[in-house]
Amino acid sequence: MANLSKKQHQVSETKHRLSKALYLLITERHYDEITIYHILDKADISRRTFYRYFYSKDDLMDFCLENFVDGYYHQRDNFILAESAEDVFLVTLNFMYSNRLFIASLVRSGHFSLLSEKLNKNSAKIYKKINLPWCIDDSVESNIDYISKGLYGAYLNILQFWLTKDKPEKPEFIAKNLSLLFNSIPGYFNAPSKEHTPLRNEK
Amino acid sequence: MANLSKKQHQVSETKHRLSKALYLLITERHYDEITIYHILDKADISRRTFYRYFYSKDDLMDFCLENFVDGYYHQRDNFILAESAEDVFLVTLNFMYSNRLFIASLVRSGHFSLLSEKLNKNSAKIYKKINLPWCIDDSVESNIDYISKGLYGAYLNILQFWLTKDKPEKPEFIAKNLSLLFNSIPGYFNAPSKEHTPLRNEK
Repeated sequence: MANLSKKQHQVSETKHRLSKALYLLITERHYDEITIYHILDKADISRRTFYRYFYSKDDLMDFCLENFVDGYYHQRDNFILAESAEDVFLVTLNFMYSNRLFIASLVRSGHFSLLSEKLNKNSAKIYKKINLPWCIDDSVESNIDYISKGLYGAYLNILQFWLTKDKPEKPEFIAKNLSLLFNSIPGYFNAPSKEHTPLRNEK
Repeated sequence: MANLSKKQHQVSETKHRLSKALYLLITERHYDEITIYHILDKADISRRTFYRYFYSKDDLMDFCLENFVDGYYHQRDNFILAESAEDVFLVTLNFMYSNRLFIASLVRSGHFSLLSEKLNKNSAKIYKKINLPWCIDDSVESNIDYISKGLYGAYLNILQFWLTKDKPEKPEFIAKNLSLLFNSIPGYFNAPSKEHTPLRNEK
């Protein structure tokens, strides 16, 4: 069993080495210009080993993006420590900023949707997990999908615009803008006050 | 001059006939599966005429999307007539709903970003033109880009989720959800009250 465990560890290590190599290559050039040869060279891994674990470059890309999203969700675990919405934004924006070359390259090569689909997939589930006062009550289940898609869409569109700039602003500036966005609009609505939705901290 | 004008009219009519043919084909099948032959057949136009006006299918697609966006902006002109935010949403949501087969096909074939880029391009400019009370004051110019990208991102992500459903809800339901989204979140922020942004109707 110890041997098996060691082998599993090696497999995981090799797959992550390939994933890291692709990640680094994407920070340097368009995804479409990257060949299997580039990846093998960067990871110092044989073609035979590559095809033992992955069908193709796209298959490795899927794994690479899964790892990225795992890293993102790991950051989101820190949400429970954040005291204000601005701090919540800052946690994930810092993560995205540190990966800005990767994200900008995905946007420019037209592959950002591969990432945003992965992030989007679990948006409603994750939204329900966050228990901050500005989250709408779970009981309005039928609306949660739309609310979470809206919030995620705002976040992801700002992310693309921000990180493809030649000199992206610091995450603190974006966190302020996100707060401003969510903060400034609604008081001035002719809001459906009769249909006011209960919020978690009103319970 | 009268002749030239007539010819210009014919050119425009032919280009729009091709655009309409592509639009209809997209409501029926994946964009990638559509050939020039399909388009010529649908539009009843010769190959020679096609290549007089367009370089390729992608070139025609660009024109087709420009026409779509023009139609969308035309709807947005009705914004000034809308009395509440919900009515504003409803105007454009009705337009999108009436084009739901086209939009769903773009999303499914991975080409929605071609449309969202076109819509995004002018988002800040358009946002500044709208003079509703819930729009943030123009004077905060540096933030407008981010605010408008956020609002647009929310809108576009909800749009994709909504119209790819087997049975999309009626636009009225989505308008309510958008209002709810923009309405419910911010009062519960630990908002940066000292950095409160002036709104247009506070002037």
